[in-house]
Amino acid sequence: MDKRNFNTPLSLRNMQIKDPFWKGEMELVRTEVIPYQWNALNDRVEGAAPSFCMRNFKVAGKLNRQRREQGEAFQEPVYTFRGFEALPEDMEHLEDKFYGFVFQDSDFSKWIEAVGYSLTQHPDPELERIADGAIDVVCAAQQEDGYLDTYYIINGRDKSFTNLRDHHELYCFGHLLEGAVAYYEATGKDKLLNAARRFADYIEGYFGQEEGKCKGYPGHEIAEMALVRLYETTGEEKYLKLSRFFIDERGTQPYYFAGETHEDRDDKDAFTRYQYYQAHLPVREQEEAVGHAVRAVYLYSGMADVARLTGDEDLYGACRKLWDSIVNEKMYVTAGIGGTHIGEAFSFPYDLPDDTAYAETCASIGLAFFARRMLEISPQAEYANVMERALYNGILSGMALDGKSFFYVNPLSVDPLACKRDERKFHVKAVRQKWFGCACCPPNLARLVSSVGSYAFSENEDTLFVHLYMGAELKKQTGAGTAQIGIESELPWEGNVRIRVAARGTGLVLALRIPDWCGAYTLTGCDSSQKEEKNGYLYIRKDWEEEEILTLTFPMEVRLMAANISVRENVGKAALMRGPVVYCLEEADNGKGLHLLALDPQGKPQVRSQEICGVKAQAVIMPGFRQREEEDGLYHEWRRPEYEERELTFIPYYMWANRGENEMQVWVRVR
Amino acid sequence: MDKRNFNTPLSLRNMQIKDPFWKGEMELVRTEVIPYQWNALNDRVEGAAPSFCMRNFKVAGKLNRQRREQGEAFQEPVYTFRGFEALPEDMEHLEDKFYGFVFQDSDFSKWIEAVGYSLTQHPDPELERIADGAIDVVCAAQQEDGYLDTYYIINGRDKSFTNLRDHHELYCFGHLLEGAVAYYEATGKDKLLNAARRFADYIEGYFGQEEGKCKGYPGHEIAEMALVRLYETTGEEKYLKLSRFFIDERGTQPYYFAGETHEDRDDKDAFTRYQYYQAHLPVREQEEAVGHAVRAVYLYSGMADVARLTGDEDLYGACRKLWDSIVNEKMYVTAGIGGTHIGEAFSFPYDLPDDTAYAETCASIGLAFFARRMLEISPQAEYANVMERALYNGILSGMALDGKSFFYVNPLSVDPLACKRDERKFHVKAVRQKWFGCACCPPNLARLVSSVGSYAFSENEDTLFVHLYMGAELKKQTGAGTAQIGIESELPWEGNVRIRVAARGTGLVLALRIPDWCGAYTLTGCDSSQKEEKNGYLYIRKDWEEEEILTLTFPMEVRLMAANISVRENVGKAALMRGPVVYCLEEADNGKGLHLLALDPQGKPQVRSQEICGVKAQAVIMPGFRQREEEDGLYHEWRRPEYEERELTFIPYYMWANRGENEMQVWVRVR
Repeated sequence: MDKRNFNTPLSLRNMQIKDPFWKGEMELVRTEVIPYQWNALNDRVEGAAPSFCMRNFKVAGKLNRQRREQGEAFQEPVYTFRGFEALPEDMEHLEDKFYGFVFQDSDFSKWIEAVGYSLTQHPDPELERIADGAIDVVCAAQQEDGYLDTYYIINGRDKSFTNLRDHHELYCFGHLLEGAVAYYEATGKDKLLNAARRFADYIEGYFGQEEGKCKGYPGHEIAEMALVRLYETTGEEKYLKLSRFFIDERGTQPYYFAGETHEDRDDKDAFTRYQYYQAHLPVREQEEAVGHAVRAVYLYSGMADVARLTGDEDLYGACRKLWDSIVNEKMYVTAGIGGTHIGEAFSFPYDLPDDTAYAETCASIGLAFFARRMLEISPQAEYANVMERALYNGILSGMALDGKSFFYVNPLSVDPLACKRDERKFHVKAVRQKWFGCACCPPNLARLVSSVGSYAFSENEDTLFVHLYMGAELKKQTGAGTAQIGIESELPWEGNVRIRVAARGTGLVLALRIPDWCGAYTLTGCDSSQKEEKNGYLYIRKDWEEEEILTLTFPMEVRLMAANISVRENVGKAALMRGPVVYCLEEADNGKGLHLLALDPQGKPQVRSQEICGVKAQAVIMPGFRQREEEDGLYHEWRRPEYEERELTFIPYYMWANRGENEMQVWVRVR
Repeated sequence: MDKRNFNTPLSLRNMQIKDPFWKGEMELVRTEVIPYQWNALNDRVEGAAPSFCMRNFKVAGKLNRQRREQGEAFQEPVYTFRGFEALPEDMEHLEDKFYGFVFQDSDFSKWIEAVGYSLTQHPDPELERIADGAIDVVCAAQQEDGYLDTYYIINGRDKSFTNLRDHHELYCFGHLLEGAVAYYEATGKDKLLNAARRFADYIEGYFGQEEGKCKGYPGHEIAEMALVRLYETTGEEKYLKLSRFFIDERGTQPYYFAGETHEDRDDKDAFTRYQYYQAHLPVREQEEAVGHAVRAVYLYSGMADVARLTGDEDLYGACRKLWDSIVNEKMYVTAGIGGTHIGEAFSFPYDLPDDTAYAETCASIGLAFFARRMLEISPQAEYANVMERALYNGILSGMALDGKSFFYVNPLSVDPLACKRDERKFHVKAVRQKWFGCACCPPNLARLVSSVGSYAFSENEDTLFVHLYMGAELKKQTGAGTAQIGIESELPWEGNVRIRVAARGTGLVLALRIPDWCGAYTLTGCDSSQKEEKNGYLYIRKDWEEEEILTLTFPMEVRLMAANISVRENVGKAALMRGPVVYCLEEADNGKGLHLLALDPQGKPQVRSQEICGVKAQAVIMPGFRQREEEDGLYHEWRRPEYEERELTFIPYYMWANRGENEMQVWVRVR
């Protein structure tokens, strides 16, 4: 680790995203997802399972009021675990109970986080008023001692922290911190931040290395990175220390979770079982990414944060091994991760089945979190390449082009019949779903998309890093002044970028990523003595004139990609990419039976503008073949298959399933 | 249906199997499986989960004794359902309770059935003495009223017939009939047969169309075909009628099972749920083979039996549709059936994944049952072709070459790492297992293999049908006398058959199947006026001399097979067959990474004698290729793969996994 390389995301308040591509996605989130989500939080979505989220906060607030009013006469509630998802017996007559999933509080936190980001890019007093009102409700639920999780407040505090493994208590805590910091950074309002700090202080008083403190850690990680964020916002060292404690304690022997659930501590299956939680080994000894994919990358993100802030080389080394494990052995070409739906988890190395993939939207989002944090330690293009691939593919595929429906699971090959008739594929949906009872992916998409600029741009003292080319107006403080940078980009459809720099006397250094998907590139506006290539970034150091223009051109060829031969499933096949975008075949363009199609690798691809559900994109037309159908019963003597020539139409993977239920396939046979 | 075509298996007492291939398998069953199984029934197998089978019969017998001795003072046991498998708390101190799976009685019945068949081919007074002793124990457990299922005898008769769906009561009943008939036919001893009849009479008094009788039917089918067998042995019409009742009642509305389990009868998922039991529709309306594959083919076998014996064209039509559904859409090339382990069931049409296949040994055995019964109605080679394929492939693969370990699941592609690390493949084992707690496949193999002659040879008035070419001495009664037929066969390794006929004056007609795996064939020993080809059988009618010799030669070419293009998984691949034997690649012969191998379809196959674990077989050597390995990370730009020439060694599929844990693959890429 070289501290001189460290960098942190440019504040959203120092940028205005104006990118034609990403601004469109952000507007979908602002106009569709955030309002829908608010309705969902308040159980106002017809036909959807109620969230009970805001209702739970109100019930908890009511208990607080009663406690204050009744004084000693007040009877604390009695803990009642009514299952992971507590549903009312009668929707018409709800009682003052906790309803919904145990982690339902986090729905508010994710929403307020997205709202915060959105407000930085699109001020909206009415939305801010609603948000402030929601914050009032949430804060009214906070206990005297700072505790703030309605599941235990309503069910009885006596069972608090008794099931860290599965009750998501520290997960909700982590999300609350993330939301509170985001809203504070966006608006400067600190009511929620203060509530979150008080809760963090309470947690910090409860957990830690010190004698007498609880030695537990989160079953579902996120608090690790959230505490770092709180530390970076408040400057309070103890939050960083607590994060490090959670990380270091994880997976040590005897297993904390085993004690908690009264399992046999010598249980031989414990190692395998705790892989799901990444709690099978101390994190520094973990070399293979295993278990629940979202939890894994959330943990690794926190590890990278702590490694950077504490200068912990060992921890960084563990991050690096886990990163390699993912990107060299366990990642789909779309940057989807999680090869199996069983445990929503990583499968073994090179086991990347296309049709039974899990590749949860949230996991790709988490991979972007992890990539950004690795970039913060060391700006190497390999991290940004994966982050970019996740953003344009495995993440965006989670949301319909109209922002109204969502995928949890992002398979690379779909036969709609199989999704309906083969229980092994019931987790795979051929069309996006409206909203989920367990709503993790849509709100996660909302918070990621509305803060996407902080993935594109980061900074250290004098350097502005451009990891992703995205139209924006940026302000960068250097030691000597303020630089203004305007970026125009045609990505992901063309590789043309124009950068306007007004940085006279600022000493600004620009670090521009050279994407892995282009060979040669051209840069105008500076001479060769002013540029230096390092780790896939082009560093530009010069005495800037009043206003200068740099232009970058990244040739965007259609590329046929192959998988490592250890990926059994993809031997003999190719996937198509252009720029950062992965393409796929869809039945809507190519007819039924996509498995009968084959690519001509010598064929010359043509790029064609195509509109899908009103959204413009570049389709790719490739010469290919279709195997002729035969009427031969189930088995027959082999003869060389006959093929007819056929143009194959590829569309961007993230746009699939926007034209009704149909077959889709990323990997195509090569002939 | 044309009654003149009807035929029934030649009695095992009228044949002596002397086939080098099958006699070897039968000897394995006789010397390894049957003794092992007897030890298992008596809980004398170290390291194996105890069966408790004979123990349960003894406990039930003890209750009987006490009931007799104590008279009215006797307290009937109280029903205690201790789970589908009732395990003792303390193996050292067993009580007078029922232990083991609810269907444990059937272990005895399967064993006695195999013993019966075996005794016809290899008289063994010691084995017969043990069997008679076991029969005494079983009969002592029978109740005054004829009832004979130890699960309910020991747990309390009051709950008898309250869970037909899942408690296998009528399944155990069916197996008891099968075992009793087999032992009676082999030895002429009728003690067990009489007990089985008394139980059948009791069941017949309880179930049926008549008012006041119970309208239930078996959750796990087999009683249907077993009752037919009892009818054919005893001539008692009521058993046939009861079988027909079970068949006709099945799947009618309202669902019997729904009432039994107090489910909502209007439950919309009931249709889907009862597919598992083939109880979603009346059987005559079923057109697609669905649900648990073993249950399905057991049912269809019973349906074919009843159709033949009652001349029921509709029922035969239903059998025909279900047959077509299996063999045209749902059967592996090995004649394995059951594409998914979820419910051990058929998947949707053409969904035949190689690596997650279920293809249970018992299901292929049941397919042979069904095929034989379709042949009994109409001797068409298509039935025999499937039966033969099942016998040499999907069935025999269930047993190790030493008869000491067994597969339940018979996949067509195995990566041992996946079996250990991918929960979706935990049902797939890379090596055969010793014996199972739920021991269905090994005993089923034992009864099938020891009666294999009855699948090879059947008869009607004057005709002897040779469905499978198997060395044997046969006796055939015609209207005019007794014909002696001796068969020598080199199958499955060479297609040479020699038939010695001593049939002067008997009017014997020989019907010899022409296998689907040979093109032309030659026959010597009769002239063209004496032979007629019909439905894939060669009928030979002549005035036989004292002793005549016919020779048949079926050329046995190595054949490359292709699957229907609707089988997504196998597009671009081929499987190799020679005669009735399906071949596979194994790591032991071809190294790791079988998915990198490809066949040269123009290549000239060579047949080579190879010994595997002391068993001689014909291996096939095919020219092919191995894709070169590359060091390129997980994804890289596609370039034409490089191949090196390589001889591919194929061994018979049924012989795989006899040389330790390794990769295996049936379908191979074609280049």
